[in-house]
Amino acid sequence: MTSQKEPQEGLSAPAKVTGPSSWSRVSCPCCISSHIEPLVLIQLAENIQPITKQWIMSVISAPVKAGGAQLLVHPGEDMKGDMIVVAAPRCTLLRVTEDLGLCKTYQDGNMTAFSFEDRDNFCNIDDMQQFLTLAERQYIVKHELDSMRAREDQRIPGIPAPKGKLKARESILQKLEKAGVIRNITPLHKQKLLSALGKQWYSHKSLWGQPLDSIHAYFGGTIAYYFSFLDYYTLSLFPPAILGLFITFFLPSANFSSGNKTESAPAPPKDDDDTPSVSSYMVQAVFSMLWSTVFMELWKRRSAALSYRWGTFNLAEQFQEPRPGFHGELGTNPVTGRLEPLFPEWKRRLRIGLVSVPVVGVFLGLVVMGMAGFYFFERLFSNWHKASGSYFTAVLLYLPSIAHIVYTNVLGNIYRNVALKLTEAENHREESSFDYHHTTKVLVFTFFNNFAVLFHIAFFKEDMPLLRKRLSSLLIVTQVVNQFTEVVVPFLVDRFLTSADRNLKEDDPEVDHLQAQGSLPAFPGLFAEYIELLVQFGYLSLFSCVYPLTAPLLLLNNLTEIRTDAYKLCKLFNKPFSAPVANMGVWQTAFEVLSFISVMSNCWLLLLSPRVKDLTEDAGLSSSKVLVIAVIVEHALIMVKMILAFMIPDEPDWVRIKREQIEYHSMQALKKQRIMRSRVEDKVPLKA
Amino acid sequence: MTSQKEPQEGLSAPAKVTGPSSWSRVSCPCCISSHIEPLVLIQLAENIQPITKQWIMSVISAPVKAGGAQLLVHPGEDMKGDMIVVAAPRCTLLRVTEDLGLCKTYQDGNMTAFSFEDRDNFCNIDDMQQFLTLAERQYIVKHELDSMRAREDQRIPGIPAPKGKLKARESILQKLEKAGVIRNITPLHKQKLLSALGKQWYSHKSLWGQPLDSIHAYFGGTIAYYFSFLDYYTLSLFPPAILGLFITFFLPSANFSSGNKTESAPAPPKDDDDTPSVSSYMVQAVFSMLWSTVFMELWKRRSAALSYRWGTFNLAEQFQEPRPGFHGELGTNPVTGRLEPLFPEWKRRLRIGLVSVPVVGVFLGLVVMGMAGFYFFERLFSNWHKASGSYFTAVLLYLPSIAHIVYTNVLGNIYRNVALKLTEAENHREESSFDYHHTTKVLVFTFFNNFAVLFHIAFFKEDMPLLRKRLSSLLIVTQVVNQFTEVVVPFLVDRFLTSADRNLKEDDPEVDHLQAQGSLPAFPGLFAEYIELLVQFGYLSLFSCVYPLTAPLLLLNNLTEIRTDAYKLCKLFNKPFSAPVANMGVWQTAFEVLSFISVMSNCWLLLLSPRVKDLTEDAGLSSSKVLVIAVIVEHALIMVKMILAFMIPDEPDWVRIKREQIEYHSMQALKKQRIMRSRVEDKVPLKA
Repeated sequence: MTSQKEPQEGLSAPAKVTGPSSWSRVSCPCCISSHIEPLVLIQLAENIQPITKQWIMSVISAPVKAGGAQLLVHPGEDMKGDMIVVAAPRCTLLRVTEDLGLCKTYQDGNMTAFSFEDRDNFCNIDDMQQFLTLAERQYIVKHELDSMRAREDQRIPGIPAPKGKLKARESILQKLEKAGVIRNITPLHKQKLLSALGKQWYSHKSLWGQPLDSIHAYFGGTIAYYFSFLDYYTLSLFPPAILGLFITFFLPSANFSSGNKTESAPAPPKDDDDTPSVSSYMVQAVFSMLWSTVFMELWKRRSAALSYRWGTFNLAEQFQEPRPGFHGELGTNPVTGRLEPLFPEWKRRLRIGLVSVPVVGVFLGLVVMGMAGFYFFERLFSNWHKASGSYFTAVLLYLPSIAHIVYTNVLGNIYRNVALKLTEAENHREESSFDYHHTTKVLVFTFFNNFAVLFHIAFFKEDMPLLRKRLSSLLIVTQVVNQFTEVVVPFLVDRFLTSADRNLKEDDPEVDHLQAQGSLPAFPGLFAEYIELLVQFGYLSLFSCVYPLTAPLLLLNNLTEIRTDAYKLCKLFNKPFSAPVANMGVWQTAFEVLSFISVMSNCWLLLLSPRVKDLTEDAGLSSSKVLVIAVIVEHALIMVKMILAFMIPDEPDWVRIKREQIEYHSMQALKKQRIMRSRVEDKVPLKA
Repeated sequence: MTSQKEPQEGLSAPAKVTGPSSWSRVSCPCCISSHIEPLVLIQLAENIQPITKQWIMSVISAPVKAGGAQLLVHPGEDMKGDMIVVAAPRCTLLRVTEDLGLCKTYQDGNMTAFSFEDRDNFCNIDDMQQFLTLAERQYIVKHELDSMRAREDQRIPGIPAPKGKLKARESILQKLEKAGVIRNITPLHKQKLLSALGKQWYSHKSLWGQPLDSIHAYFGGTIAYYFSFLDYYTLSLFPPAILGLFITFFLPSANFSSGNKTESAPAPPKDDDDTPSVSSYMVQAVFSMLWSTVFMELWKRRSAALSYRWGTFNLAEQFQEPRPGFHGELGTNPVTGRLEPLFPEWKRRLRIGLVSVPVVGVFLGLVVMGMAGFYFFERLFSNWHKASGSYFTAVLLYLPSIAHIVYTNVLGNIYRNVALKLTEAENHREESSFDYHHTTKVLVFTFFNNFAVLFHIAFFKEDMPLLRKRLSSLLIVTQVVNQFTEVVVPFLVDRFLTSADRNLKEDDPEVDHLQAQGSLPAFPGLFAEYIELLVQFGYLSLFSCVYPLTAPLLLLNNLTEIRTDAYKLCKLFNKPFSAPVANMGVWQTAFEVLSFISVMSNCWLLLLSPRVKDLTEDAGLSSSKVLVIAVIVEHALIMVKMILAFMIPDEPDWVRIKREQIEYHSMQALKKQRIMRSRVEDKVPLKA
């Protein structure tokens, strides 16, 4: 079936890896094909014994019933080499597509949860390379490798006893990775596809538009969602950027005079007599709040549409095999009836509540301590500087800031390890739930780390000029650091690597090409990328009314960010595995929480703005009365935000209808099936 | 089938209404039965013409295909009488059971969504009186009556033109009610069952335990949920009541001295040297917060268990016919494929956001204005009193309170009508969604109405003695008023009614018994009952630390409340229809929101408590520092609350597993069904 289509990819020249000759045999007739597509590269330790390699290959190619992964393996150059190339037969691909709950186009044109038995009614079923995207095929291989488990206590041949002992139900892959036998598992690039994608993506001359569907097909769900969001976010930055520029250059009085007022003598209000109450502060604060709400609501709609388009709106992770790191007492899952480790939910919740949360709390305390230290030394040095006034003490003034940034970075690194360990101890059953809890931990910390100082300046010191200074320096430092690490370093690395890599010519043995792919560093994940966006979004939605140039600066940053991220992903790292997902997961929640906090923040900044202060002083209001008014305004704004969010539905109507149709039909089907079953039981004598 | 079982109810003596003689004919053979159970009484206007009555009866008994309700009707005494008795044939009962998505015991012992085609595998299917509860049978009749719609433009015979004109798809029942033809629709009591239930319920000597399953069977879902919650709530009041009594009688110094301190000279701290920091205030505030959290979490678990037990965890309201009041352009529902009115969701959201919310806001503003007026006059009269000091002005002092209570009550009544109109204009498709939005509107207002003054006293005036005075008077006034309206009035009404009612003897014609039932007033709904509980709960969780006797008083109130509510429901009103529901709906949310606000409230009351004030003054903290500390403590407490809520899962494990099993099986079934269908399409030539 696959053979009907001519191979198109770069690796499909008549080299030996793509031909069926030296691949392991397939067991079922429908999967026999003249063309086998290598999908994943497993890199072994260099000193690995052939007997161990042989054993690994046999496990991977064994049928699922025998505890294998039912995949196809190829030994690379020879049995002594340190690599195994893995491909997937058609049956395995289709079976796992069903297990994952992926939706594909049905004959009636709707996206429908794939079913193996019903496969002939799905479009493109004869050509795996059209039916599943490259990223999906590779993720399926990874998924199957991950779910290989030892069927009984046994030993891995060629590995000494303590490391090589496999207990029943233990994850084989995890064991091999821990024992150092497997160095690395990488999905393989397809050079032709990749260069076509790259041309569309980052070599493209126009500033706008990313090939999102191609990114999804080539790199997979999580990565496609990141770039979709980045795309959408950058586009959404235009309105605040234009407003920011307008305020900065056309209303300079309202903006900059307020900063100087507190330092110098109060300047007479010259040319803003015609705008007495609506200062730039207010416009910016109210706009910020509305913008961040509409921004998140429209993204939710877009996200729902994407998940339908990409067939991931019906993922069934809770009914799959648990993730490899999951452990527990072996038992029968009461829902699916499968034998698997079970771990009670209440134990997990207890661990989260009584261990994870307090530990995270301690780290947040350390952040606050760091902040206290920063202020202590800043006051100390500024007193010295006042006393001496020399150039040396002037330089010293910058020391606390720098020390604080270093401290928070070091603390952040320690914390990241702790967060991983804690989440592992919570023993989540699903990969997505693990990610959610892990990310949340790091997120909370990062948020605290980045914003505690700003909040302190804004609301306790109430020092707007300092806030503005700090915000602008943070923005500029972040930009410079990011541009450096994301543009300059990549460029240098690429130049440097090129010399080693480009020597490979088209006619070199394919194995060398494969080898070269494994030599790149592993992709560090989207964590850092998302956090960068989140922190940016925080600066913008929480404090931008103080520093109107925030949005234009961020827009500039994002326009380069898209290209550099794309370049990085395509060229500088190994291709990552990327699971099919239905949304941004915890990041969406994080952005929403920030946009909620932004209402409060903007409201209080408004209250502290010099114009409002003047107004309230003129009106002779006591500070407690002003506070009451502020609370009322804040609650009214939160109401407005919630009404706005309510009025924009989270999914487009057509997605909602599709979802409800599936819900309705499966309810009907369950009833029908019960009837069928009971009729069969009643009337037909059992054959077995 | 039904005939196999001997009739047991009071009405089943050989009177004519229960025999099949004068009932309308049933169309299908399985529904023919020698015993017909009268379920619902329709009372017509007294001057109704026989031709109209005949028409109504024919519509009700017509099959669904012909636009009828497929029910059985009986004309009561004769065709001239003003009543119609309605019963339901077996097929109709079963069909609607499936439509509603009710779950019943399957042959394997699990609660399973009922399916008509698969009916023979459900337990008790042969006896409708065991298979469905009385309340369910009656609700089904009501549901079918409600869904009768005119098939084309027609006239109701015997009714003049403007009132008697029916448009196509118009709800027949609504039209008849609007035209004044139908006065009343009441489910019928079963005297034997009712007196047995009453004996168990309110004549019972023991204070504890209500027959919840019998209440559910006899009165139905919403009512059973109310009493379950009342039961649970009363039980949960014991811990705070004991604490409250303990604080009042064993720690009197900390409690009452603080009230006098502000009025008289500061008394020397005598006998509380051994409890320097943990005053009764703090204990009560922290306890209140923890208690309200655990209370709601455990209720959620109980609620989930009840909904499984009562077979309502899988209701499918969104796939049913829309509620009678729903209007819109006629079209095909894209999900179920049925012809019905359609109304776009965005229009509804627009109406809610741009009309309902602002109007509700205006009314809340009126509440605040009323409060302002109250304070203005209170100050005015208290100044007069100070000036004159006569008995007359002393009486005047109570006038603002009384005027304010009257004002809020009048405003509340106007608002209730406005809220109903607004919710009708929002045009909700489902009954439950209508209820949700309607209740929310009234709730928000009631909350404001009841608590605005208390919040004002507590947080703006910061006058603890006044708060205590006001709280205790509110509690005592509420108790007295409630006990009066709920015990004394019912008792008098009962005595009064008895003379008219008890004259009926066992051997009087059944029709007179039926007639007597229709003569009671309509049950006013659970709205007032729930709001009473919610306001109570608010007093307790928000302010009880100020007045520790709140909980004991509430406990006393609830113990009588259970009995009087039960008595009222059984004896003093017509039996109400009660829909099968899966939880308390919006009330659960309301209690949760209150329990959330209670954290903040308690935290600020703590801050304002005399002991803490002394402590902070002794420590020499500035008021802004104290505020910062309070904010931190508040957030920490909210964290603790959220962690606690997280650690107690919302549903018991066994319910979660059952739910997931159904989800899993219906997913599987949908796939199976598609295969079946495609095989049938492929291989079997179509017969039709």
